[in-house]
Amino acid sequence: MILVNGVETDYIKADDRGLLYGDGIFETIAIKDSKPRLLEMHFERLKESATKLSIQGFDIDNLTKDIDLIVSKSGYCDAVVRITITRGVGERGYASLSLEANVVVSISPFPEYIYEKRNSGIDAIFATIFLNKDSYLSGIKHLNRLTQVLVANEAANKGVDEALVLSEEGCVIEGSKSNVFFVFDDIVKTPKIEDYGVAGIMRRRIFDVAKDAGYRVIEANITLDDLLDVKEVFVTNSVIGIWPVATLNGREFSQFSCAEKFLKLLAEDMA
Amino acid sequence: MILVNGVETDYIKADDRGLLYGDGIFETIAIKDSKPRLLEMHFERLKESATKLSIQGFDIDNLTKDIDLIVSKSGYCDAVVRITITRGVGERGYASLSLEANVVVSISPFPEYIYEKRNSGIDAIFATIFLNKDSYLSGIKHLNRLTQVLVANEAANKGVDEALVLSEEGCVIEGSKSNVFFVFDDIVKTPKIEDYGVAGIMRRRIFDVAKDAGYRVIEANITLDDLLDVKEVFVTNSVIGIWPVATLNGREFSQFSCAEKFLKLLAEDMA
Repeated sequence: MILVNGVETDYIKADDRGLLYGDGIFETIAIKDSKPRLLEMHFERLKESATKLSIQGFDIDNLTKDIDLIVSKSGYCDAVVRITITRGVGERGYASLSLEANVVVSISPFPEYIYEKRNSGIDAIFATIFLNKDSYLSGIKHLNRLTQVLVANEAANKGVDEALVLSEEGCVIEGSKSNVFFVFDDIVKTPKIEDYGVAGIMRRRIFDVAKDAGYRVIEANITLDDLLDVKEVFVTNSVIGIWPVATLNGREFSQFSCAEKFLKLLAEDMA
Repeated sequence: MILVNGVETDYIKADDRGLLYGDGIFETIAIKDSKPRLLEMHFERLKESATKLSIQGFDIDNLTKDIDLIVSKSGYCDAVVRITITRGVGERGYASLSLEANVVVSISPFPEYIYEKRNSGIDAIFATIFLNKDSYLSGIKHLNRLTQVLVANEAANKGVDEALVLSEEGCVIEGSKSNVFFVFDDIVKTPKIEDYGVAGIMRRRIFDVAKDAGYRVIEANITLDDLLDVKEVFVTNSVIGIWPVATLNGREFSQFSCAEKFLKLLAEDMA
């Protein structure tokens, strides 16, 4: 089910700049017991991203109404809502000043396998593709996601659940759809998100509750050499919540205890 | 006027991956006297780009029919046709194997100002934004164009016609919507397109006819220091054809003779 500017439809204008140039931003939100989770944090990031890209003409109150409407109309209890905000429709060409945004809100049922993999853990690899630096757009959850598509397709082709990507300098950055954490006893390290990657909402929640879980979480430059004595690995995003990594490039991890503690502490933030 | 998979409509599916992830490619083609120009070269690049991104399920013969149909239905003599090919509609998530492409063909009248600026020349600047390296997607005319949007908006905000971007290493690469050429007597230099930028069709045509114009065109790494004694500058793309640069960051150029020679030789390739 899809709402475009508050109206139920399956279609958007074929000359929308979101399609023509990937000129827009998005958020993916978990719905649990018919309630959106971490909504304020998603809205904050959406507003920050819109400001950085000068996308204007959407309203957070209307967005809240759209989400309530689509959740209640769908009848789903647990679900995934995606908000896509494009810069709108303009003249031909890249330049795009003073347009009115278009707002697409869609819902799909929450996939069962996501719950399962929170228990079983996932198979992950390091992608052969690396990430180029992104000085202007890193951190923003924008619609230019071709690199993530390539990385996700590499994982799918190799029959694993997620692929982690390294920077050109050889530092681990993130998964195709997730942030990643490496557990060394009571220290948890996660890659710095500066010139690369997406600053995930669930990643921030891990920092928020780290102390209660008995861990110190730090941002670091992490190379493959730094991972020799890692005890546990997990990945996060707003929809999957937390997935322990059971295998990484074939190396087996049997310890999920840190991921399990965070899963308990953050249960209310997930579907 | 817009055709989606051969059918006249203003709309596409709101869950098309072209919108969700910028997961697609495009070409912009000049129509002159109701005939598409350099169509074979555009098709070649389209097929190369589709192969690189594993986008499948579109047919060049159908595309040719779509173009003929939209040109004749529009009644335009000189026009701009855009072909957008998306990976299609799939499951939620970045991975996207084995989908059927969606094909959007649109037409708009040829803008008058493009002819005018071939005579008057344009005002251009160097953008303050630089380009990050793009190891996997450079050369491909894909739908991830947010950087070009930012650069074009910088030009629009400063009231000029085009902004040239440099690489992080300080080499000139291209304009927001064009390739760029620098004339030094009978040598014409244009940036190498390897880890950055789009390999334009009109750029290739300049190489094809260089000798007939009395010039030697070479690809080079070009820094701002190399431009101290440049005599003439011009930019190219399939729609604008060739635009001489009249001012670049305020520096005036009164010599347009090289651009004028190429404009004459390539007149049949432009609207």
